[in-house]
Amino acid sequence: MYPVRKYKVKCVISYDGTHFHGYQKQVNKRTVQSELEKTLAQIYPQEKAKLFCSGRTDAGVHAKGQVVHYETDIQIPKERLLTVFNHQLAKDIYVQSLDYVDLDFHARYSATEKHYKYRIMNTDKRDVFDQDYAYYYPYPLDLAAMQAACPYFVGRHDFTTFSSARSTAKGSKERYLSEVSLTKDEEAYILTLKGNGFLYHMARIIAGVILDCGRGRLAPDEIPHLFEAKNRQAVGRTLPACGLYLWDVKYEER
Amino acid sequence: MYPVRKYKVKCVISYDGTHFHGYQKQVNKRTVQSELEKTLAQIYPQEKAKLFCSGRTDAGVHAKGQVVHYETDIQIPKERLLTVFNHQLAKDIYVQSLDYVDLDFHARYSATEKHYKYRIMNTDKRDVFDQDYAYYYPYPLDLAAMQAACPYFVGRHDFTTFSSARSTAKGSKERYLSEVSLTKDEEAYILTLKGNGFLYHMARIIAGVILDCGRGRLAPDEIPHLFEAKNRQAVGRTLPACGLYLWDVKYEER
Repeated sequence: MYPVRKYKVKCVISYDGTHFHGYQKQVNKRTVQSELEKTLAQIYPQEKAKLFCSGRTDAGVHAKGQVVHYETDIQIPKERLLTVFNHQLAKDIYVQSLDYVDLDFHARYSATEKHYKYRIMNTDKRDVFDQDYAYYYPYPLDLAAMQAACPYFVGRHDFTTFSSARSTAKGSKERYLSEVSLTKDEEAYILTLKGNGFLYHMARIIAGVILDCGRGRLAPDEIPHLFEAKNRQAVGRTLPACGLYLWDVKYEER
Repeated sequence: MYPVRKYKVKCVISYDGTHFHGYQKQVNKRTVQSELEKTLAQIYPQEKAKLFCSGRTDAGVHAKGQVVHYETDIQIPKERLLTVFNHQLAKDIYVQSLDYVDLDFHARYSATEKHYKYRIMNTDKRDVFDQDYAYYYPYPLDLAAMQAACPYFVGRHDFTTFSSARSTAKGSKERYLSEVSLTKDEEAYILTLKGNGFLYHMARIIAGVILDCGRGRLAPDEIPHLFEAKNRQAVGRTLPACGLYLWDVKYEER
């Protein structure tokens, strides 16, 4: 017997989260993972490849650059594999790029940083073409207050207050955020969050707190007290999934 | 008995056509008309208002500025009515504006011109967020050839070749187009069509012929022969609905 050579494939994928019940596989539900594994079974009919991702996304959350990996015994040329993937996949999911990587690469455990964006539409009128791709908030917002709120989230903090009480994360709720910033174009506010890890609902709860500062419901300098409270009840609601994008996942250069 | 005062309301509406089985009411299907009439029944529970539009749109076709009208006995203040409509309507349909108009106004028969846009995405990669909002054509296109094709459609012509053989329009297939033009931004080609009337599938068939010129399948100067053929079979396929937008409907100033 010859030892079987294993190959590991890393894929950067985009999806429109609107019609998925989130990333993770569920019985009888259309999810990103189940769509991808269906396609893997078509490409590698002899194998039952297991798929790993950088982190699950909830129903309705979008991805520009989610990362997944799987192992296989068969080395299909890269360009060919990319074409086959995108030919087979449904129209709301797309493989942006793929690579054969070292066997010790792991989509989740090798990740050094994740980027999220949260998009808040701030116009009088609804745009019917944008309903699933942003949170729509039609009332006045104070950009300066929102921008003043951002730096309070940067750095290493215990994010208990800013994560779902249903969070299943074991151990420390300390996370490090390297950037929290807000920009505004003609119609939308874009919140960018970069960090080494995000707890359950963390990006959407932080977005809600920053929105509350923009609405005058909360003064930015109260945010340190909210951290101290270590209590999800201390802050407002989790903003809707449709405004959130998993934008990018960073790995160490190898 | 007092004579009942009638009011006529003109509404400019937008809709994302993706999840509608077209504009026109059908049994057990979600259509734009049935959604609007459901809302009318909520706003005017004593009435059974009949709704008229400038022209039906097919399943998947979008509208930025479709126009509808209805009659009612009850004059609800304009701003209030607009708010109620948009509060009641599903998120993929929106009333941009509304007005009380003369009783002889008719959304269809008073229209003097309609504008359509057809959007062709021309990028190597699919954009998962844009799949339902453009036709995706990833191969090279010759902009100059496409632009050279446009003027052949301007003016008064018999558009038999460029309309569905299933067209139910009675009488003449002559129509007058005042503008056919093509612009290109970073990723998409936008075809604009303006005219006094459009036959069934006419905008999408013309878009297909102009695309064929861009692909080198057809020389623009062959277009006059296609008009002469008066035969739908003389030209290629109808482009998909998802690229088409009913952009605007014009009425005589009153």
